[in-house]
Amino acid sequence: MNEKTISSQRAFDGRLLKLDVLEVELDNGRRARREIVRHPGAVAIWARAPDGRFVFVRQFRKAIEQELVEVVAGTLEAGETPEACARREIREETGYAVKTLTPLGSIFTAPGFCTERIFLFYAELATSGPADPDPDERLDVVLLDEAAWKAMISRGAVQDAKTWAAWGMFEARRRRTDARRRTADRTPNEEQRTNNQELIAD
Amino acid sequence: MNEKTISSQRAFDGRLLKLDVLEVELDNGRRARREIVRHPGAVAIWARAPDGRFVFVRQFRKAIEQELVEVVAGTLEAGETPEACARREIREETGYAVKTLTPLGSIFTAPGFCTERIFLFYAELATSGPADPDPDERLDVVLLDEAAWKAMISRGAVQDAKTWAAWGMFEARRRRTDARRRTADRTPNEEQRTNNQELIAD
Repeated sequence: MNEKTISSQRAFDGRLLKLDVLEVELDNGRRARREIVRHPGAVAIWARAPDGRFVFVRQFRKAIEQELVEVVAGTLEAGETPEACARREIREETGYAVKTLTPLGSIFTAPGFCTERIFLFYAELATSGPADPDPDERLDVVLLDEAAWKAMISRGAVQDAKTWAAWGMFEARRRRTDARRRTADRTPNEEQRTNNQELIAD
Repeated sequence: MNEKTISSQRAFDGRLLKLDVLEVELDNGRRARREIVRHPGAVAIWARAPDGRFVFVRQFRKAIEQELVEVVAGTLEAGETPEACARREIREETGYAVKTLTPLGSIFTAPGFCTERIFLFYAELATSGPADPDPDERLDVVLLDEAAWKAMISRGAVQDAKTWAAWGMFEARRRRTDARRRTADRTPNEEQRTNNQELIAD
């Protein structure tokens, strides 16, 4: 399947977003209009504090006129790698230092009309200093143990798509790691090697 | 926390999307610019075929120039309820009839810059007829049993944010239902009542 671009017109050229209106040709020869929001991409981090609790931020989101509890996240700056962006956002939004940072994968938030791709990470955090948020952002750090997080799921209070994806990828990775650990109880060297490959040391 | 709107200007007024540029005042008195994409909202459905397999669609997404496997989903039409939209999208995209439809909750796909809210459902499907897709959409139905779906997660092939959220909410609901069923083995009438409340019969 494919859609060939027949024409593309820039309809908005903003500071964060751009918007193009495309005419495309489908495989079946039909033509269709596509309104596409261009976004620079972002990162999101499933983070654990030194005491084992999960680290979130609560912030007011103007687009939806309400507060939301979300994983730590932020927009890629020009030329910035996802890893560097993740370290920067953790420092700015939470004040914690990063002990280990592991890529989990990536998602598209709204592939029907938006280019935004979010690179997801799992981070184990070390000692915290003061947070240093962007002056345009107001946010609170929220620490939840696993039972409190699951209670939040049960009462329908997890409403941020990237946070669901980060949790799903973290859980899948934990299941794989646990399975490997059970195998490695028989062959310890194998486990050591596999874990090292996955970690990006600080 | 709050952000007061100082001014708002419509910068794009499209067929699907609108885009406003806002000046806002933060709690701390600072002013900031917000570029906000207005979207009519959507639905997404974690669906099971009569044989127990999960139902997805594979489609080419122009915004990201690649194919994606996603849950059945679609945009709300003017005046349409999420339930009616879910039934319509299942019929159009897959050809299946809906046996039961259960609301799972809702998510925001990109709350930092977009109003889109997706209402999520769990659907058990009945006999299928021919699909009747939107002429502007080309898609294939993909049926996966749970092992194949989990293998897809493990190889990093689940890249759609709403699909992650639908899976997480489906799993959380299944855990609750299983827990209630275990309790109800002792008090059968209680289980009957609780399940009926959650279902929207066709």
